[in-house]
Amino acid sequence: MKKPATRRLAPAVLLAVLLVLPAFADEGMWLFNKPPKDLLLKKYGFAVTPEFMDHLRLSSISFGGASGSFISPDGLVLTNHHVGQGAVQNLSTKDRDLMKTGFYARTRAEELKVPGMELRVLQAIEDVTGKVLGAEQPGMTPAEAADARGKVIAALEKETAEKSGLRGVVVTLYAGGMYHLYKYKLYNDIRLVFAPEYLAAFFGGDQDNFTYPRFDLDICLFRIYENGQPFKSDNYIKWLTKGIREGDLLLCSGHPGSTGRLLTTAQLEFLRDTGYPFTIANYKRRQAYMHEYSRKGGEQARVALRNLFGIENSLKATIGYQSGLLDASLMAKKLKDEQALRAAVAKDADLEKQFGGAWDELAAAEKAYASFYKPMVFFERANGFYTTYFTIARNLVRLAMEKPKPNADRLREYREAGLPSVERGILSPAPIYDEFETLKLSDSLAQLQEELGDWQETKWILGGRPPQDVARELIVGTKLKDVSVRKKLMDGGLEAIYQCQDPMIKLALLVDPVSRGLRARYEKEVDAVETRNGARIAQAMFKLEGTSIPPDATGSLRLSFGVVKSYVESGKKIPYETTFAGLYERSRKAGNKDPYELPESFLKKKAAVSLATPIDFVSTCDSIGGNSGSPVVNRKGEFVGVLFDGNIQSLPTRFVYEDTISRSVMVHGQGIIEALLKIYGANPLVDEILGKR
Amino acid sequence: MKKPATRRLAPAVLLAVLLVLPAFADEGMWLFNKPPKDLLLKKYGFAVTPEFMDHLRLSSISFGGASGSFISPDGLVLTNHHVGQGAVQNLSTKDRDLMKTGFYARTRAEELKVPGMELRVLQAIEDVTGKVLGAEQPGMTPAEAADARGKVIAALEKETAEKSGLRGVVVTLYAGGMYHLYKYKLYNDIRLVFAPEYLAAFFGGDQDNFTYPRFDLDICLFRIYENGQPFKSDNYIKWLTKGIREGDLLLCSGHPGSTGRLLTTAQLEFLRDTGYPFTIANYKRRQAYMHEYSRKGGEQARVALRNLFGIENSLKATIGYQSGLLDASLMAKKLKDEQALRAAVAKDADLEKQFGGAWDELAAAEKAYASFYKPMVFFERANGFYTTYFTIARNLVRLAMEKPKPNADRLREYREAGLPSVERGILSPAPIYDEFETLKLSDSLAQLQEELGDWQETKWILGGRPPQDVARELIVGTKLKDVSVRKKLMDGGLEAIYQCQDPMIKLALLVDPVSRGLRARYEKEVDAVETRNGARIAQAMFKLEGTSIPPDATGSLRLSFGVVKSYVESGKKIPYETTFAGLYERSRKAGNKDPYELPESFLKKKAAVSLATPIDFVSTCDSIGGNSGSPVVNRKGEFVGVLFDGNIQSLPTRFVYEDTISRSVMVHGQGIIEALLKIYGANPLVDEILGKR
Repeated sequence: MKKPATRRLAPAVLLAVLLVLPAFADEGMWLFNKPPKDLLLKKYGFAVTPEFMDHLRLSSISFGGASGSFISPDGLVLTNHHVGQGAVQNLSTKDRDLMKTGFYARTRAEELKVPGMELRVLQAIEDVTGKVLGAEQPGMTPAEAADARGKVIAALEKETAEKSGLRGVVVTLYAGGMYHLYKYKLYNDIRLVFAPEYLAAFFGGDQDNFTYPRFDLDICLFRIYENGQPFKSDNYIKWLTKGIREGDLLLCSGHPGSTGRLLTTAQLEFLRDTGYPFTIANYKRRQAYMHEYSRKGGEQARVALRNLFGIENSLKATIGYQSGLLDASLMAKKLKDEQALRAAVAKDADLEKQFGGAWDELAAAEKAYASFYKPMVFFERANGFYTTYFTIARNLVRLAMEKPKPNADRLREYREAGLPSVERGILSPAPIYDEFETLKLSDSLAQLQEELGDWQETKWILGGRPPQDVARELIVGTKLKDVSVRKKLMDGGLEAIYQCQDPMIKLALLVDPVSRGLRARYEKEVDAVETRNGARIAQAMFKLEGTSIPPDATGSLRLSFGVVKSYVESGKKIPYETTFAGLYERSRKAGNKDPYELPESFLKKKAAVSLATPIDFVSTCDSIGGNSGSPVVNRKGEFVGVLFDGNIQSLPTRFVYEDTISRSVMVHGQGIIEALLKIYGANPLVDEILGKR
Repeated sequence: MKKPATRRLAPAVLLAVLLVLPAFADEGMWLFNKPPKDLLLKKYGFAVTPEFMDHLRLSSISFGGASGSFISPDGLVLTNHHVGQGAVQNLSTKDRDLMKTGFYARTRAEELKVPGMELRVLQAIEDVTGKVLGAEQPGMTPAEAADARGKVIAALEKETAEKSGLRGVVVTLYAGGMYHLYKYKLYNDIRLVFAPEYLAAFFGGDQDNFTYPRFDLDICLFRIYENGQPFKSDNYIKWLTKGIREGDLLLCSGHPGSTGRLLTTAQLEFLRDTGYPFTIANYKRRQAYMHEYSRKGGEQARVALRNLFGIENSLKATIGYQSGLLDASLMAKKLKDEQALRAAVAKDADLEKQFGGAWDELAAAEKAYASFYKPMVFFERANGFYTTYFTIARNLVRLAMEKPKPNADRLREYREAGLPSVERGILSPAPIYDEFETLKLSDSLAQLQEELGDWQETKWILGGRPPQDVARELIVGTKLKDVSVRKKLMDGGLEAIYQCQDPMIKLALLVDPVSRGLRARYEKEVDAVETRNGARIAQAMFKLEGTSIPPDATGSLRLSFGVVKSYVESGKKIPYETTFAGLYERSRKAGNKDPYELPESFLKKKAAVSLATPIDFVSTCDSIGGNSGSPVVNRKGEFVGVLFDGNIQSLPTRFVYEDTISRSVMVHGQGIIEALLKIYGANPLVDEILGKR
């Protein structure tokens, strides 16, 4: 559910997608500083104003990989339950399982401060393409160019922090064809206000994930505090109390994580043949042992759920993406589009000279990457050391190593702009469960042994011993559970790290050189080549057709649009919205058994609920993972729902836009109010949301 | 033999040594810019002139841990055979064992270029005490002060290289009470001219090492080339063809490595109780397995000899030093001297406030050091990885890590001034013998297992496997034998190191963090404290008695003096010189058997030799390890001999000066000429030495 996505298209339009402005499609995750004005005006008669965009932007919240929005002048924030789930779990203990019971703070004093949480709001966007690309000199290799750009980027981000106190992040758009500097305000005092029971939020479970019709109350409410007081602002989204109808224009503001619509066929083939097969097998493996662990008991199930939820979600999403790539007709169309663009470039001698070689260079880079993908994933991406302790240890080690370097020379995530987040992560008091961590580490070490058993580092770490023994020793031996130990190590710098006898720190040190070696290779041979040639292809497109095609998603704030719309699946019409009546009926049919078991609150208050009230609905708004929690508004900017998923048909739209049967799925604004009032008796909260106080 | 030493003293004078100018002793390794003018004038009526000192300095050569001198205007250089031995061995092969056969280049074309050799000549000395100590700020911890001084030192060294092209080395004197900047000219094209057979150079073997009477032709001749031509200079030592007599004043110019006469009793106790016991046991262990290896065959013996020679020499020296520390009367005297000095300081409130705490702070540092001495030695000093390959690997790894840092932030040995030597060491084509290296590494890994088996790094490296298996894999697996591989890694920087799959490089990376951690601890908790408090004690001494007491040896160029002098041992008078007659007689008595076997050349040419010619002699010149190869001259600056040893009684003078029975041992100038002419027929060489061409 973290990775919803949707779009529409008739196959014949595909070439146009790449080469012509898709004037009549709802496609696109548009930049806030380049919204699709003409398109919206022409198709929907909707005039986007700067005021509308500014208000929506300042009401939107980045949840770091997901989205949310302000919905009251007192800092009340709405997102999905599955987005807030980490916080809910971190506030839970063996004896207080908020996932199970749900949570509602009847007064502000009861709101629970979330450990280690950080939210951010985009204050401004600056186009820095000229500055960044100006760092490149003729004759530079891709890696040298990347290095030169990296230094400018680091300087821009640092300057932002110094000048404005805002977090500057340079966003790479069009695979390197465009660079924008995003300036965020950060919030760190976040408190949990309301969460329904997990059974209500994730009704239908993994079985219904990425499906529709759906009946989920996938919401979670937080409140942002500043200086100990609720954060006050006029930039929040007013609630629409009326319903919506088919055909209504909707606008969605969120942080779609990544799409691959502008990738070349060589890049898609890499994903299809190397990246996704490994990822899927890896998720399946984790899913299997976590399910087994969950069966040991209630507490084990509670603990495992933290990871299992995300894994099953990602697994389902990745299988969906892969299904697109395994569809020969999709790949054939991608190839055809690519050939058409290459032909258009080849027609013009200047374009051909500048951009003609980009596709072959990219193909060579993908081939190179395939040759070291596994060690890259196991060492640098730490797949061989799948435990929170290793994440902390590596951050401690690398923070100590990187901090003394000049800002621009550091690994990107340890540059000044990112340090507060890194440090907050290290010091997060979120609970860690050793038995579960041992299980995770055991299996990932076993996998390391299977996949990279002949690497020297693997031999050292395992030395022929059972992975579970090694894992147990590491988990038992580490002192990193104690936040004060982490703090001391962090403050002590590299000297403290080098003198530390903690086995997890030593493990992070042991695999650091090989990991850095692989990363350097990746950055030089793959990433830099992808960026340079992605940029060249983008520039060719700009020359041929301007910037009428929106960039791929990159986790930065985007605007998408679409309409409330039912669709036909296997000859059956699927209605655009579901109701509480449907929810109770679905549960009854399944004998109120997992995954269609309703929480006690829903069962007890059934009589009070107006059953015709809509609970979920769909629209053609373009979205993908990262859009979870995105506010969806009408022409007036009023809140109509919060995006939480895409249907299963929407998954391949990661690569090719489609909207006959693919949809984004939202929790309905009316359903939220109904549940808060009738089931949870959260009248003061509803009053705040509806502005009735 | 690398560690000769000698001095004289009557026990009652001991207090005076510390507290009063030792006006009538021959003690002292004096600074070239502060020679003992008054002492020499008063005691020997010898007026030292600046010209005398300059000429002697520019005629003296640093062999990196040993000494030598120019003895012709055409760059001919004399040192000991045991100093040149590494070069002789590196020029040897299985089929051309120059250790066994000796070597004589009859023409310049026959001279053999020595791989990786570097010699240096001191061009100037600058007192930088003010600059270095000026970096300290009040309130700094010892480690902060060390860091601040280190930055100034690095800058001074770097500036020297940039301004003059000379190698700048800041020498720490009086344990940190004084700092001098030494500026060296470097020579890298060194060719072997003459070496006698090992049997002649080391007649008496380990049995006679550090003994007298002695009959060794411990000499070796090189020639320095510059731009492909023999180096021309007027700064060379003219040969005295006449003999010497008892009582003759001699002056010795060389590079004594280290003495501990100004150490506190706490420092001596550390050596006695921790440092030396480990060192001695370690040398004995190496000696044992190398002897065993030597017995396997001639080639094995040849290969082992390279290390065995140095080990037995160091072992004997260390046992000698330790014998001094184990002598209760010596330690009692040291304590008495220390108490006298402390009492003198305590008498003056100002002195007491400034310097009174120094001794206790030092004692605490020694105690701390004892607690991590073994890991320090096994990891940072690489005792656990005793193979040339590891030395190369560590240098490659650390060079890559240190080079990108600002000069002053680097580990000292990787600062700009030192880089040429480090790089030359890495690229040295000197042969490496894998079977022998495997043996060395096996045993050191076994020792690592025994001593530090519970350290995580040890567990990783050995993983419960037999050390010899691990060692064999490392030696078989490494590609570092190939100099071009080293070159490529060196040129590739850190990225190449991180991507390198060589097991020896990976081992060096694995142990780098723990090694650096221990080194940092040593530098902070021990070295910085020793330096600060050593300096405080020195400053107290300066206040009480000026700089009349020479500093301890530190490997920098020093002048010592003394007289030709026989002595009495066990009631028997030991003559000041030995002759060729004595040599032949000693051999005959032993049946010409090891270690008194003479090479064929000596046996064959016996009739030609004038048997009364002196071969070795002794003097009271103060010396210690590092003085090997030092030229010894008369009042006129004429060459009378080359220092190569001290007698066994001289060893404890590392800590307390003594000269009734301790002596330095020299090869006699006349003996050298006699051997070259009569035994080796090296007439052109003799003509060059005597200036007869």
